[in-house]
Amino acid sequence: MRTSLECLPCFVRQAVGSARLVTEDEGTILRMMQTIFRELSTANLSMTPPEIAQKLHAIIRKELNHRDPFQAIKRMSTQRALELAPEAEAAIRTSPNPFASAVAFAIAGNILDFGMKSEWNEEIISKSFAEAVEKGSCFDEEKVDRLYNEIDRAKRVLVLGDNTGEAVFDRLLIEHFPRKTGIFYAAKSAPVINDVTAEEAVDSGIDKVAAIIPNGAAIPGTVLSKCSSEFIEIFNTAEVVISKGQGNFETLNEEQRKIWFLFQVKCPVIAKYYRFGLGDWLLLEKEQGRLACS
Amino acid sequence: MRTSLECLPCFVRQAVGSARLVTEDEGTILRMMQTIFRELSTANLSMTPPEIAQKLHAIIRKELNHRDPFQAIKRMSTQRALELAPEAEAAIRTSPNPFASAVAFAIAGNILDFGMKSEWNEEIISKSFAEAVEKGSCFDEEKVDRLYNEIDRAKRVLVLGDNTGEAVFDRLLIEHFPRKTGIFYAAKSAPVINDVTAEEAVDSGIDKVAAIIPNGAAIPGTVLSKCSSEFIEIFNTAEVVISKGQGNFETLNEEQRKIWFLFQVKCPVIAKYYRFGLGDWLLLEKEQGRLACS
Repeated sequence: MRTSLECLPCFVRQAVGSARLVTEDEGTILRMMQTIFRELSTANLSMTPPEIAQKLHAIIRKELNHRDPFQAIKRMSTQRALELAPEAEAAIRTSPNPFASAVAFAIAGNILDFGMKSEWNEEIISKSFAEAVEKGSCFDEEKVDRLYNEIDRAKRVLVLGDNTGEAVFDRLLIEHFPRKTGIFYAAKSAPVINDVTAEEAVDSGIDKVAAIIPNGAAIPGTVLSKCSSEFIEIFNTAEVVISKGQGNFETLNEEQRKIWFLFQVKCPVIAKYYRFGLGDWLLLEKEQGRLACS
Repeated sequence: MRTSLECLPCFVRQAVGSARLVTEDEGTILRMMQTIFRELSTANLSMTPPEIAQKLHAIIRKELNHRDPFQAIKRMSTQRALELAPEAEAAIRTSPNPFASAVAFAIAGNILDFGMKSEWNEEIISKSFAEAVEKGSCFDEEKVDRLYNEIDRAKRVLVLGDNTGEAVFDRLLIEHFPRKTGIFYAAKSAPVINDVTAEEAVDSGIDKVAAIIPNGAAIPGTVLSKCSSEFIEIFNTAEVVISKGQGNFETLNEEQRKIWFLFQVKCPVIAKYYRFGLGDWLLLEKEQGRLACS
């Protein structure tokens, strides 16, 4: 999807918030913002929002002289997710439909997103997980079964990771896949916002259940033209692609292949454009070349 | 007060929202935003937020080739305020403390602010007025009496207008002043956001209760160095100055004279900095040279 004019204030808010994570020096942040504004003054809105975000976060890292401003928040996310995992595992185990419940927790985990908000909000996170138990039985059962059966029949399944911490719940989902081999988990090749990199995927235990593959880019989404040929090969040959999060949706929703999108709708622009409800939990089955809304 | 880094996303949001009021042409808005970003790339944060807003809104008007993008919303505000006025008048009349109730309605009217949000929200507006009845009895009675007595003793009282529509409730407040002469009402000298100009003050009936004086500037606040000498003379000689709205607070809160500030706290930056609650209704008695919080 192309970038909306309404994304512009969000980029600016995100830039200030990211800088606040690592410095209190107003002069440094102002100088960084001046560069951000110069970049935005030539922004091309036919790019996807994650592509513009990539450019801005590259400026943020450079101007702050910090390779990973979200490092602390990412560590906290993984730690908190690992704490929440046993409870989620118990809920999945005792659910009448464990796979559907695992899907719900994988979507619950998508709340660990610090692109939209830069601060930690324990209340929102706890609420998301409390909801997962209930939502597990809310999805269209036939759709959940379809995903399950597709995974069962596939030789290769590719999961596109989104946020750090969320990856812990992606691991729980993968543990409930009907197959144990040929599972790939894509991570970002370098830090960008709080997106999961290979290192953080390992911290979440993903290496125990899937082959972790860096996608070759540091964009908070999946822009195929910027990904490595190794990643593209898996993307093209995997029978099932499960895409986590909004950033991957924004960059892959127009791709000519079937993709399962799992995410919480956190952005009013996306909600309006695709007629989702803000806050909706989506298990979205996009068929080849068209967008089928749940 | 100086501009905060957190004001930057708000300026950008305000610019996009203002443009949306008068055009659907994305190309026009994008070109305008590019100029806005160039301006922001050299922004001086030691200026107050309304001074920066003034520069940006001048760009908005020029790039959209529209002298007053908020014209329709201002008309709607005055019309709606005039509809609500009889109910407010009845509530004030039957209140145990009519002056306090008139103060509350003058603060309720401050919700007609389209700097923070560009769309009309009837629900928020109705809620603000429903609250006014209750809030009239919530202010510190001694403080309300002090304001009343100061007006009674003053030879000149100056009310600094803020938003269009809100002026209708400023008129109700002035009608409950203990004195009927020497009342001045400052308006902006040209359109900026939805701020009240002399023309709209007349539409609100202010001319029946006060001498309307344009302040000489088109800044969404009161920057004395940019005001006319006629205005400054009244500002300096009035024994009582009642300042409506956040914009006037942001530009006058450090002035070396006593000022009564009446507004709803709509901005998280102001709330945080001055330890107000977001959404608070303030009858703030700033003594000479210091800020006394209510």
